Amino acid sequence: MTTHVVHILNGPNINMTGKRDAAHYGGVDYDEMGRLLQERAGAVGLEAVIRQSNHEGVLIDWLHEITTEGTPVIINAGGLTHTSVALRDALDLVNAPKVEVHMSNIHAREPFRRRSYLSDVVDGSIAGFGVESYALALAWVAAQMSA
Amino acid sequence: MTTHVVHILNGPNINMTGKRDAAHYGGVDYDEMGRLLQERAGAVGLEAVIRQSNHEGVLIDWLHEITTEGTPVIINAGGLTHTSVALRDALDLVNAPKVEVHMSNIHAREPFRRRSYLSDVVDGSIAGFGVESYALALAWVAAQMSA
Amino acid sequence: MTTHVVHILNGPNINMTGKRDAAHYGGVDYDEMGRLLQERAGAVGLEAVIRQSNHEGVLIDWLHEITTEGTPVIINAGGLTHTSVALRDALDLVNAPKVEVHMSNIHAREPFRRRSYLSDVVDGSIAGFGVESYALALAWVAAQMSA
Amino acid sequence: MTTHVVHILNGPNINMTGKRDAAHYGGVDYDEMGRLLQERAGAVGLEAVIRQSNHEGVLIDWLHEITTEGTPVIINAGGLTHTSVALRDALDLVNAPKVEVHMSNIHAREPFRRRSYLSDVVDGSIAGFGVESYALALAWVAAQMSA
Amino acid sequence: MTTHVVHILNGPNINMTGKRDAAHYGGVDYDEMGRLLQERAGAVGLEAVIRQSNHEGVLIDWLHEITTEGTPVIINAGGLTHTSVALRDALDLVNAPKVEVHMSNIHAREPFRRRSYLSDVVDGSIAGFGVESYALALAWVAAQMSA
Amino acid sequence: MTTHVVHILNGPNINMTGKRDAAHYGGVDYDEMGRLLQERAGAVGLEAVIRQSNHEGVLIDWLHEITTEGTPVIINAGGLTHTSVALRDALDLVNAPKVEVHMSNIHAREPFRRRSYLSDVVDGSIAGFGVESYALALAWVAAQMSA
Amino acid sequence: MTTHVVHILNGPNINMTGKRDAAHYGGVDYDEMGRLLQERAGAVGLEAVIRQSNHEGVLIDWLHEITTEGTPVIINAGGLTHTSVALRDALDLVNAPKVEVHMSNIHAREPFRRRSYLSDVVDGSIAGFGVESYALALAWVAAQMSA
Amino acid sequence: MTTHVVHILNGPNINMTGKRDAAHYGGVDYDEMGRLLQERAGAVGLEAVIRQSNHEGVLIDWLHEITTEGTPVIINAGGLTHTSVALRDALDLVNAPKVEVHMSNIHAREPFRRRSYLSDVVDGSIAGFGVESYALALAWVAAQMSA
Amino acid sequence: MTTHVVHILNGPNINMTGKRDAAHYGGVDYDEMGRLLQERAGAVGLEAVIRQSNHEGVLIDWLHEITTEGTPVIINAGGLTHTSVALRDALDLVNAPKVEVHMSNIHAREPFRRRSYLSDVVDGSIAGFGVESYALALAWVAAQMSA
Amino acid sequence: MTTHVVHILNGPNINMTGKRDAAHYGGVDYDEMGRLLQERAGAVGLEAVIRQSNHEGVLIDWLHEITTEGTPVIINAGGLTHTSVALRDALDLVNAPKVEVHMSNIHAREPFRRRSYLSDVVDGSIAGFGVESYALALAWVAAQMSA
Amino acid sequence: MTTHVVHILNGPNINMTGKRDAAHYGGVDYDEMGRLLQERAGAVGLEAVIRQSNHEGVLIDWLHEITTEGTPVIINAGGLTHTSVALRDALDLVNAPKVEVHMSNIHAREPFRRRSYLSDVVDGSIAGFGVESYALALAWVAAQMSA
Amino acid sequence: MTTHVVHILNGPNINMTGKRDAAHYGGVDYDEMGRLLQERAGAVGLEAVIRQSNHEGVLIDWLHEITTEGTPVIINAGGLTHTSVALRDALDLVNAPKVEVHMSNIHAREPFRRRSYLSDVVDGSIAGFGVESYALALAWVAAQMSA
Repeated sequence: MTTHVVHILNGPNINMTGKRDAAHYGGVDYDEMGRLLQERAGAVGLEAVIRQSNHEGVLIDWLHEITTEGTPVIINAGGLTHTSVALRDALDLVNAPKVEVHMSNIHAREPFRRRSYLSDVVDGSIAGFGVESYALALAWVAAQMSA
Repeated sequence: MTTHVVHILNGPNINMTGKRDAAHYGGVDYDEMGRLLQERAGAVGLEAVIRQSNHEGVLIDWLHEITTEGTPVIINAGGLTHTSVALRDALDLVNAPKVEVHMSNIHAREPFRRRSYLSDVVDGSIAGFGVESYALALAWVAAQMSA
Repeated sequence: MTTHVVHILNGPNINMTGKRDAAHYGGVDYDEMGRLLQERAGAVGLEAVIRQSNHEGVLIDWLHEITTEGTPVIINAGGLTHTSVALRDALDLVNAPKVEVHMSNIHAREPFRRRSYLSDVVDGSIAGFGVESYALALAWVAAQMSA
Repeated sequence: MTTHVVHILNGPNINMTGKRDAAHYGGVDYDEMGRLLQERAGAVGLEAVIRQSNHEGVLIDWLHEITTEGTPVIINAGGLTHTSVALRDALDLVNAPKVEVHMSNIHAREPFRRRSYLSDVVDGSIAGFGVESYALALAWVAAQMSA
Repeated sequence: MTTHVVHILNGPNINMTGKRDAAHYGGVDYDEMGRLLQERAGAVGLEAVIRQSNHEGVLIDWLHEITTEGTPVIINAGGLTHTSVALRDALDLVNAPKVEVHMSNIHAREPFRRRSYLSDVVDGSIAGFGVESYALALAWVAAQMSA
Repeated sequence: MTTHVVHILNGPNINMTGKRDAAHYGGVDYDEMGRLLQERAGAVGLEAVIRQSNHEGVLIDWLHEITTEGTPVIINAGGLTHTSVALRDALDLVNAPKVEVHMSNIHAREPFRRRSYLSDVVDGSIAGFGVESYALALAWVAAQMSA
Repeated sequence: MTTHVVHILNGPNINMTGKRDAAHYGGVDYDEMGRLLQERAGAVGLEAVIRQSNHEGVLIDWLHEITTEGTPVIINAGGLTHTSVALRDALDLVNAPKVEVHMSNIHAREPFRRRSYLSDVVDGSIAGFGVESYALALAWVAAQMSA
Repeated sequence: MTTHVVHILNGPNINMTGKRDAAHYGGVDYDEMGRLLQERAGAVGLEAVIRQSNHEGVLIDWLHEITTEGTPVIINAGGLTHTSVALRDALDLVNAPKVEVHMSNIHAREPFRRRSYLSDVVDGSIAGFGVESYALALAWVAAQMSA
Repeated sequence: MTTHVVHILNGPNINMTGKRDAAHYGGVDYDEMGRLLQERAGAVGLEAVIRQSNHEGVLIDWLHEITTEGTPVIINAGGLTHTSVALRDALDLVNAPKVEVHMSNIHAREPFRRRSYLSDVVDGSIAGFGVESYALALAWVAAQMSA
Repeated sequence: MTTHVVHILNGPNINMTGKRDAAHYGGVDYDEMGRLLQERAGAVGLEAVIRQSNHEGVLIDWLHEITTEGTPVIINAGGLTHTSVALRDALDLVNAPKVEVHMSNIHAREPFRRRSYLSDVVDGSIAGFGVESYALALAWVAAQMSA
Repeated sequence: MTTHVVHILNGPNINMTGKRDAAHYGGVDYDEMGRLLQERAGAVGLEAVIRQSNHEGVLIDWLHEITTEGTPVIINAGGLTHTSVALRDALDLVNAPKVEVHMSNIHAREPFRRRSYLSDVVDGSIAGFGVESYALALAWVAAQMSA
Repeated sequence: MTTHVVHILNGPNINMTGKRDAAHYGGVDYDEMGRLLQERAGAVGLEAVIRQSNHEGVLIDWLHEITTEGTPVIINAGGLTHTSVALRDALDLVNAPKVEVHMSNIHAREPFRRRSYLSDVVDGSIAGFGVESYALALAWVAAQMSA
């Protein structure tokens, strides 16, 4: 059985998970979350490369690498979700399974969080299940890669 | 191990799945989709009760029953997603895990499909993965019920 | 003294009154509410025919009957208030005293509840007084019928 | 010469035609209108199946039947024209000649009647000619069927 | 039995009632209206203090007095309803039963009359019943005071 | 039997019909279209005067003549439909049967084509049937003239 | 020859004319302006009663007096033009010639000055001619009174 | 005493004055209106050159001539008022007194008549006084020319 | 050392400070606030003239006096901030240091509080620091006066 | 070497170039501009046919000729850029290189100049370089023709 | 006496202060500004750590450090104020006194500068006083820290 | 002859040119594009310094250097064009010829690409000509530098 690589990209402030309002982001902190996702990825036969940056430019650089590699990507772009056309354009270049995830239910928060520049350039979106949003995305990517 | 019941409610036109543009809804038809979801539910220890109606009122009646039962619900409200405050109010009453699903990526279609009256009264939303949107929701519900 | 018939039509989810957030709808449940309104109607010389449906179409059918009868109507259309042009058109046909009521103060809730398709085709509107919203409407209808 | 079947679907309140403001809907009542349209259909070699419902769900059920049959359809969706994405989705499935009709000039009434969810999924629209709106649609359907 | 005081505040132009389009405001003039409301108040065990001013500032001064007294208030703010945040803030301070009334059906008039700055800081709103709008409010206030 | 004159006015670019995207305007060119409509007019007892101009002012001049004559008019104003208040005002002057036609389904094209300045000053509108849009209009005008 | 009375009402800040940006309001100060208008009124056979207040309520009180008198009115409501529904309602009561004037060209200033709540309840509007805006209004009123 | 020339430009449909709804444009027809304005111009020492066209381009050509001559202009652009940036640009070139006039009160008609592309490039605007709107403009221009 | 006068103008409802939601306005009442600000003013070499009115007109009258005096002004216009063009025009006349203050963070409240008609005609704005908002303004004014 | 013909179409008011605000349109007048562009065209091997009209209809007529010829076109539609769907439709027909040019930077002027009906039916747009905007367009067209 | 640390974060282009339009940002350059603020901070018993970056990501990184330290922050986010949800989210994490400052009066500039994503997640905002905006913020922070 | 330096700044994703949809960006890849532009620059006597970054902050840093140098700049800001006020502010500081370029016709793509924060702070804009957009800009800059 081949192990497929999947990239998990986290945008601004996701590294502070667990230091913010628990109602929105669940109780685990960013390090535990990483360990948990590595495990979950392994369980479905994927090797997760998890990275986080508060810099839009860094996220775009990473997406360019991923585009070149042709690997799938799961992205939680944080606040850039609602404002970055540049990130959208980079994500649009990726020619492999791609999923947008959010830990919180972005629809139940401020109105400006309702617009995502990413939703229509990914295969699908998952929001509101805390860390499980990533895990569900991993399950889907795994199924795609083995299909 | 207890088997938990989960309701899968499908709104208008979902019964025509497979008769419409394949790019949006994938290739299976509604009957196969039902069998597939029963299987997937069984695999995660759930018993799925799958129902479909083109009638807003019937969907609301069912949500009232579900509210009384206290069982979790996965809902794909089809076109009512974007227009029905009454359905939202009924869904808001449910006090158990609840997930909004869409087979197509509603964000990549007409602008009026971008607004969901349901998104902020459910736990989370999953869109764009065809029949797998339901399967991911089942996985999450199963985890919630066994937690 | 003649007893006049008045119709009280309740739309989606009103039958769940008392099972929802008490702050919005007050503490009584739908059955008590019915008994209470029968009493209040009787006290002002009216015979109340109280019906509820979660189906827009059923409400329209009833309004057609009421139009034919020429009897007054008190309507709480629930979530349909904000979305149904079809209901508006049916209500517009009624040629007798007609009142729109809401138990909660719809103006103090979500922005989409601020628009009513019914307000400008009724004689008047009453909102925010819980079950008393209906009672005030009954008082007014009674006065109209005896005028 | 073959006689082709054409469906005429009428939505909410159309059955009350003739009981409402004559300026908008002309003077005939719904029964006469039915007889008239049967005649007009016959004159162009069509057999008209005329149905009316105040229920969105029933109209959608009928459109599903029509989709399966592959027959043409003429639809006057009444107030649902302006609010129902579900009906639009059902109509979009029909793969045969389809025409949207309105008896009144919807453009000369309230602003919310200017938006039709149906107009861009039908072949064409006809509005403002009273019962003749249907008759013109019948003429066009007949020409299509014999082409 | 205690007699409770209730304030009835009337805003700009209400004093001209009876001099304006009868279709909107009914046939009585402002003086008769005052006598009528005194009577109606008495009938439900209330003592009505009725005041009118065309000055936003005076209405606010009165609301401050009422806030201090802790007495209920029924307010018809006339045109200020749609434009005055200052009046809203004053009304928001009142910590006793408060009702917004309008004689005409403000929803059936110009679009700018559809927004009320007062509706979400009162207990409830009553519009469209002419002088009876006040009388219904008195009935509700009376019930509250004796509860 | 009297032959009635009907004017068919065509606005900007209609003379290029057949040189543009066939999906929108059908396959015939402007000259054939003229011959076809003359025939169709004759068949319903009308004499069609067909004119085309790319000049808003010329179309208005013609509408003034038509107003003076008191003859019916069928107008396809092309792109002016969506932008010309002056044309609307001229059309509003005509006191005879008047129909707005479009060959393409203007509702299924760019958003700015959804607004027509003409729709609410004509008797009715017909769109989406190619050259048949005119023919249906002719049928209706003929019926009006012989009524 | 009878001398007719005409009221000239000036709203907030008009009394500061001449103390503000000359480009907007011309060079004369409020006192000179008063003398000038008295003269101009006399020249066309009118007796001008000129009043100014910074208080919306006072302006409304004066309009009520004018309504009772049945005299014509020329009003420059200053900043209230753009915000006061109450003033509009008072002006709407006046059943005599009424003109809205502005010294500056309100259309060439901030966007919020483009909306006037008064324009559609007066006979006509004059803006941009400095003090001459009033003089032109006086000329028109004089002609009306002698007609 | 010098006689100054003033241009009166009339846009689309103004030539039909008197053939349209009298409530909007007063009772005189276009020819009488011309004679009347010639007289009124003479009375204030002006020689009026009155022209009308239904063609935007012709109006622009005339404004270019007027710009070259340096003469004042009074313009009633009819429906072009609300839609023509090209006319606005031409009018903006004129470096002499310029007045926008309307016979009807454009603010009391359809919402799209509330926006004028001309208002902020003229000295002032006069609307609502029928033919007298022009006469008031003539009075102001005369005063400017003799100043 | 000269003592400079500074005016502190308080608009509607500010006099009720301390009687309203403490979260918004801090804990002190209006009288204490006055004493505190007198002290703070003295400490920076200013003499504060503190006035409050619920009347827009009175505030405008005071601003006219201040304009004549040429003294600096600190203004908390309360609810008028968001609605009064007349107050804006009066404040615009003041030709001396002027500061807009708010005790609460108006940006964190209802959307209609986000627009201030005053912000662009003052030197600067301070919001959210309770009574300290005034104190900071005093510090700035003092620095300006001694510069 | 073949010389290719290119059409340069100028819309309303461009003929007045040099008579208007120099900051917007540069210092040359329309005649010099013509000579300059003839030269620049020649230098890149093109023969420029330069025409100007203030008439939308004439511009459309010319575009129809150009469509028939199959020659490239450079268009500066002046104010029609922002308002003419008819011109857009005509330009859309041209099946050869086509460029939209503006001498001024339309983005730095009034908001209504930010929308162009032409931009999305041409190959590209050039704005802000005065007469050089045309010259750059000529350079591009020349390259296209020789490609 | 303890000296408290306060962070002053400056966003894009603030380092160019003094090189831009003096009317907006005052006369000092960025280095002088730094020295001045160090002094002002010292005077109120604070130690200011002043940093500037043109990188959104760097500003977010710094806010995360500040969140961990629990120190107060004064932020002038420059252009990011109006566009960055990511920065808002980072600032929202800070659990210590926080103030938004702007040197210019952002309300008196382009409309897009009126919206701040930061205003409702800070304690308060200060705008328009040049370098003094920071100094006032320092005074408030100092008072908070010593409270 | 002096060789002038011109900076060409490329924003996010431009480095991926040739890896994206050819219809939008033409067929060359980023490296070829660089070589081509160096050549084109040389041909008009310019030395092009070409840089690309996916980081808004880096682009701003570079613009600050360019501002200090006083050299001209050609910028293709990619997705930042539509979202970055910070970049706009940096570009606004440049006091030398500056041109905004886009390879694709941004007006013919998604609606959110129609707004550019850069267009009104540059001399001019060029869009839609692929790599030639830059070449045209170079030609203009060269002419400016030698003027």
